[in-house]
Amino acid sequence: MQRSFSLIVFTYVAIVLFSQNTFAREYLVKTQNEYKEVSSKLKAGDDVVLANGIWIDFEILFKAKGTEKQPVTLRAETPGQVILSGLSNLRLAGEYLVVSGLVFKDGYTPTGEVISFRSNKDNLANHSRVTEVVIDNYSNPEKFEQDKWVVMYGKHNRFDHSNLVGKKNAGVTMAVRLNTAESQQNHHRIDHNYFGPRPILGSNGGETLRIGTSHYSLTDSFTTIENNYFDRCNGEVEIISNKSGKNQILNNVFFESRGTLTLRHGNGNLVEGNVFFGNGVDHTGGIRVINSDQIIRNNYMEGLTGYRFGSGFTIMNGVPNSTINRYHQVDNALIENNTLVNVDHIHFAAGSDAERSATPINSKFQDNLIFSNKNTDGISIFDDISGVTFSGNLLSEGINPSISEGFKVTSLKMQRAKNGLLYPEGNMQNVGAGKTLTPIQKDQVGASYYPKTEPDVAFDSGKVTQVKPTENALFNAINNASSGDVLILENGNYNIGKVIKLDKTITIKAKNRKHVTLYPARSTFVDINNFGSLKLVNLIISGKRAPDSAGNTLIRTSRVPMQRNFRLEITGSIIEDLDVNHSFHLFDAGHRSFADYIKITKTTMSNISGDIMRLNKETDDLGIYNAEYIYFNDNLLENVGGAVAKVYRGGTDESTFGPHFIMSGNLLKNVGNGKRNKNAASVYLHGVQVAQISENQLFDSAPIDIEHTVGEPVTAVINNEMTNTSAPKVVELIVKGPHTATLENNIVK
Amino acid sequence: MQRSFSLIVFTYVAIVLFSQNTFAREYLVKTQNEYKEVSSKLKAGDDVVLANGIWIDFEILFKAKGTEKQPVTLRAETPGQVILSGLSNLRLAGEYLVVSGLVFKDGYTPTGEVISFRSNKDNLANHSRVTEVVIDNYSNPEKFEQDKWVVMYGKHNRFDHSNLVGKKNAGVTMAVRLNTAESQQNHHRIDHNYFGPRPILGSNGGETLRIGTSHYSLTDSFTTIENNYFDRCNGEVEIISNKSGKNQILNNVFFESRGTLTLRHGNGNLVEGNVFFGNGVDHTGGIRVINSDQIIRNNYMEGLTGYRFGSGFTIMNGVPNSTINRYHQVDNALIENNTLVNVDHIHFAAGSDAERSATPINSKFQDNLIFSNKNTDGISIFDDISGVTFSGNLLSEGINPSISEGFKVTSLKMQRAKNGLLYPEGNMQNVGAGKTLTPIQKDQVGASYYPKTEPDVAFDSGKVTQVKPTENALFNAINNASSGDVLILENGNYNIGKVIKLDKTITIKAKNRKHVTLYPARSTFVDINNFGSLKLVNLIISGKRAPDSAGNTLIRTSRVPMQRNFRLEITGSIIEDLDVNHSFHLFDAGHRSFADYIKITKTTMSNISGDIMRLNKETDDLGIYNAEYIYFNDNLLENVGGAVAKVYRGGTDESTFGPHFIMSGNLLKNVGNGKRNKNAASVYLHGVQVAQISENQLFDSAPIDIEHTVGEPVTAVINNEMTNTSAPKVVELIVKGPHTATLENNIVK
Repeated sequence: MQRSFSLIVFTYVAIVLFSQNTFAREYLVKTQNEYKEVSSKLKAGDDVVLANGIWIDFEILFKAKGTEKQPVTLRAETPGQVILSGLSNLRLAGEYLVVSGLVFKDGYTPTGEVISFRSNKDNLANHSRVTEVVIDNYSNPEKFEQDKWVVMYGKHNRFDHSNLVGKKNAGVTMAVRLNTAESQQNHHRIDHNYFGPRPILGSNGGETLRIGTSHYSLTDSFTTIENNYFDRCNGEVEIISNKSGKNQILNNVFFESRGTLTLRHGNGNLVEGNVFFGNGVDHTGGIRVINSDQIIRNNYMEGLTGYRFGSGFTIMNGVPNSTINRYHQVDNALIENNTLVNVDHIHFAAGSDAERSATPINSKFQDNLIFSNKNTDGISIFDDISGVTFSGNLLSEGINPSISEGFKVTSLKMQRAKNGLLYPEGNMQNVGAGKTLTPIQKDQVGASYYPKTEPDVAFDSGKVTQVKPTENALFNAINNASSGDVLILENGNYNIGKVIKLDKTITIKAKNRKHVTLYPARSTFVDINNFGSLKLVNLIISGKRAPDSAGNTLIRTSRVPMQRNFRLEITGSIIEDLDVNHSFHLFDAGHRSFADYIKITKTTMSNISGDIMRLNKETDDLGIYNAEYIYFNDNLLENVGGAVAKVYRGGTDESTFGPHFIMSGNLLKNVGNGKRNKNAASVYLHGVQVAQISENQLFDSAPIDIEHTVGEPVTAVINNEMTNTSAPKVVELIVKGPHTATLENNIVK
Repeated sequence: MQRSFSLIVFTYVAIVLFSQNTFAREYLVKTQNEYKEVSSKLKAGDDVVLANGIWIDFEILFKAKGTEKQPVTLRAETPGQVILSGLSNLRLAGEYLVVSGLVFKDGYTPTGEVISFRSNKDNLANHSRVTEVVIDNYSNPEKFEQDKWVVMYGKHNRFDHSNLVGKKNAGVTMAVRLNTAESQQNHHRIDHNYFGPRPILGSNGGETLRIGTSHYSLTDSFTTIENNYFDRCNGEVEIISNKSGKNQILNNVFFESRGTLTLRHGNGNLVEGNVFFGNGVDHTGGIRVINSDQIIRNNYMEGLTGYRFGSGFTIMNGVPNSTINRYHQVDNALIENNTLVNVDHIHFAAGSDAERSATPINSKFQDNLIFSNKNTDGISIFDDISGVTFSGNLLSEGINPSISEGFKVTSLKMQRAKNGLLYPEGNMQNVGAGKTLTPIQKDQVGASYYPKTEPDVAFDSGKVTQVKPTENALFNAINNASSGDVLILENGNYNIGKVIKLDKTITIKAKNRKHVTLYPARSTFVDINNFGSLKLVNLIISGKRAPDSAGNTLIRTSRVPMQRNFRLEITGSIIEDLDVNHSFHLFDAGHRSFADYIKITKTTMSNISGDIMRLNKETDDLGIYNAEYIYFNDNLLENVGGAVAKVYRGGTDESTFGPHFIMSGNLLKNVGNGKRNKNAASVYLHGVQVAQISENQLFDSAPIDIEHTVGEPVTAVINNEMTNTSAPKVVELIVKGPHTATLENNIVK
């Protein structure tokens, strides 16, 4: 052993000596041991080249001292062809370091960070740059095992032209830390990066970029965030969470990203030249202002639907003498020359309550342009806004101004300019965003060598295959299918003898409605795994051949923790006789699984001993829920022992928009009366943020039971008819006072 | 593609033609395609030989028609060297088939059965034999995905000299089905098999052998189960579940197996010559008698501790006019010449209640020998037993007979005979089991080629390694360790920057108590995976460097479903400052994970925002719990926001012995008062079967809260002192009437 090790060292030394004969001092390293040897003796000007290939479980420590003129570099032999996979990561420590061209994928960091601008708390990086790197879904398979992808410490560092795409697990995608003096007033620059799609996390902990923390938020950071593209960064309510002072957030584009750029803590920040395209997507927001001396200038926002703290534009109320982690009063804010086009909500003095009573002061809102084709300025006012001076703002025609002074209604004809933004025709005297604003394009950001792909495969986007009712035919067809494919089942009966583990987007559809019957013979019909999404159309599914044991589930998600969100649709189908034993459920969400949506429509469900949808797997009240949107429309239910849905969103934090529950046009007979239906409800919602239950008829069923927790939930129970069924119940579990739901036109007989 | 396929067929045909030149008609097949081809044309006398090697995802359909003199065989080239792995299984259909020498391991069946004596419901096997096969931990990785390993259909089949070892997932290990006329009066023989260790499942569904089901239980089966060895078959309360008539259960050995041989349904069965060695292991039982015309003769039972339905010997009460799935009255039972040595419990008319009111009738209990060194016969009588005639039974000296007639107390000097059983000295006139009884030995059963290994590695059974407090030293030491090893940590502080995923049995021990401090820096310190068990000795563990987020856990089980049970011990340690954020727990059980035991002793725990032990992951009330034994003794707790333990065993079925909770000699100060401690209890037990809480002192703490559900739980709360702490609460959630717990000598100030 000892001998063979010596031999390796010897070979390696020979290579180094050889390369030292040249001036370049370029070290091409091919193994981790070679890297270790090289990295221990780096000098200013040295250049370490990682050989092309896949490096597994490589924890790179890049520690060296370069100079401004002679930095030490670590780079890929060919940018994009050095793959760090498995349990790899990168730490930089020292001065004037440059890293470039590396790709992290097919793995996750064994520590709390993928790229760290320090080796440990005593050794930071300064004057260093990481550029043209990619971190592509390098997510811990355990979704709620938290880590961060890029963390900047030290001073004068730069992170640029990189791709951070598809973070699926908890934890901020990128953070700037100010936790010691050596990392404050840091003058970092974060620019030209592609922050690619980050799916809804379904809990707190899904911010894309955070600068500082509340603890050090009164410290100045002097970080510049510019020319970055945020593409569908939907992790949670904050896209950028600014928590320090004197930062500049400039010329970034936010494309269809749910949440807002939030000036959460810290004073004296500048937000200028940013462009928000909501395109009408749910919960797209703009800028939320808190604290002192903030300047919000020359930004453009269009098609933003968000409300409350997620609005297109928000000025918050503060807490008098706020502790460092609550809300500091807005003071001396300058908000000018912003354009807001079809922004649904603009909230002033938002969050006003007994605690948050300090209204904004010494602030100006001027020369902004608000255009709406809905004849409303979208403005809501929650407290005294006399501390904000409004002047020179323009509103489009047809709007009755919510604020009398400082807003002028005028005819605005908007035209899209070459830069992609809408401007009013004519000279508007420097109101709204300037014409020189140039939103950064997707192809101008990120690592030039790396493609920007779409995150999901759409249903029905692949090829169509016919399936005959022979043994294992459906099972084999799914195995052979590609994501997006449609399987058309020919008439007949299908015995399903194996659990289908689905890791593709698949549609299963009857050739002829009511002529195709599936008989799942195992405890589960379909087990949705990572990358799996399922659509069932026009099928009959009978539980008659399921094993005679308690707790069968027709469809469920993997019991292995799911990192990927999934989609489930059932339409035009008949699902019956899930009653061979007790607690036979139609859909059961796995612990920590998360559906982007579940949609059940135009389907008949009868004789089911368990629940239709179980989305209640949180036992720890950390606010981790199981589905963002649940649609249940135009269905017929008869003799269902459990509930239509059990949806549980625990905890008290307010970092998520969902879950949403929409239930309309259904007919329920004898639903929810099973003795094992613990909540004794036909619909049980806990902590759901948006619930719309309308136009349903319930006969001989258990009542609808709704528990409000936090987040000002929006609940409407309207135009339902209950016969021999108790009236809906709504309670507030946390907020005192009467419940805030809208209950209208419900007939209870 | 077409061409290359033809080529394969051609090559293959050549082999067949060649072998047809001999008389043997022996087909050596090397690929699945070859097998498929061969198997389609088998004739009586043919011999299919699977080539040695590992066959992956091979679903064998062995369908042929042999004759009594010329069976068709399927066998391993070398017994034990043909491994079926991945998603493989075997179906037999036809007549006179013989399968031998196959090993199923490293995988699990894709269907509901591994070896099935049918190909589908219309094609059964008859006169067929499966011999010398092994199924070794061929368990679905999803523990509660149910399947069976061997299922006999048809008639006149035999399963023998095989090993069924280590079934970890739900579902009966082996079953005889009588679900159609073609499978009734079957005259199967199940003999000389090794039913190896089956761990506690932690729910219903862990029987080892079932003959019939309640539905067909009035049908005769005529199955013989003889000379099998049941080695620690601990799945659930029934080891053998007899559910049909006219079976013979002969000369089997039950070694340290929890549960009983239960004559659950069906009449006219013979149980003779069986030997039960409990060796004092918890919940070891013997025979439970229900139904008519049962003969229990010449069996030997020793060292059985079980009680209630799990007693050494039980005669049940029945339900008048019982439905087929409840309890038929015991009628005409003959129980004679059995020996019971140190059997703790013998229950007559067990289960007597308002429903089960039909006492045993026309029955005889005679010439049995009961020896005890505890001066008790262990007999409990729950109802009228005048329907049982007692005669000629002997009791050992010092026993005061529970039943006055038919029992004679006499001086018995027991000596162990060569057959391993205890017999009284002298001539006892044919009382007790006969001297010719010869318990089958472990080496006489199972496949001769396959070793019988121990299932678990004991703590501290490996080598000892010293670890220094350098970066990643502990992490690396664990990676390099073998199961059973002990790591001795030298004095110092250990920063734990990575989550330790533990898949070994490991002890981590301080070299010097109070001189070794661990600082876990991730959300979790140790993540216990399959094969992982952890023992911590004399350590200080501080949560100070844990990430500032809610829901950290010091130790938890894998979020991937665990198939293996684990063990956790903490002793002599100090665990402190788990309070960087809310809900920081000491131990959190994963969904469906199961601890054989958790033992925390002589440990100080202080400043913890969450719970000490969370064993409450069942949300579906199927009776699936997280730990069998929980010991919490001689600890000191201060400022713990959550509870000492949250233990939840839901559901209403009675197929498990646990969970057990033992808590003694602890001092608690300010425990359970956190606002997020939902139950507002310092100890919360739901559905726990055995609870002993004694000699604890509680100050300023939340109360002890116990919820009884089913199974006649044994709860004792004794000699505790509560200061500024409410009295313990016990409620019955299902059974009507006052609670059945023993609460004595508790002082509440």
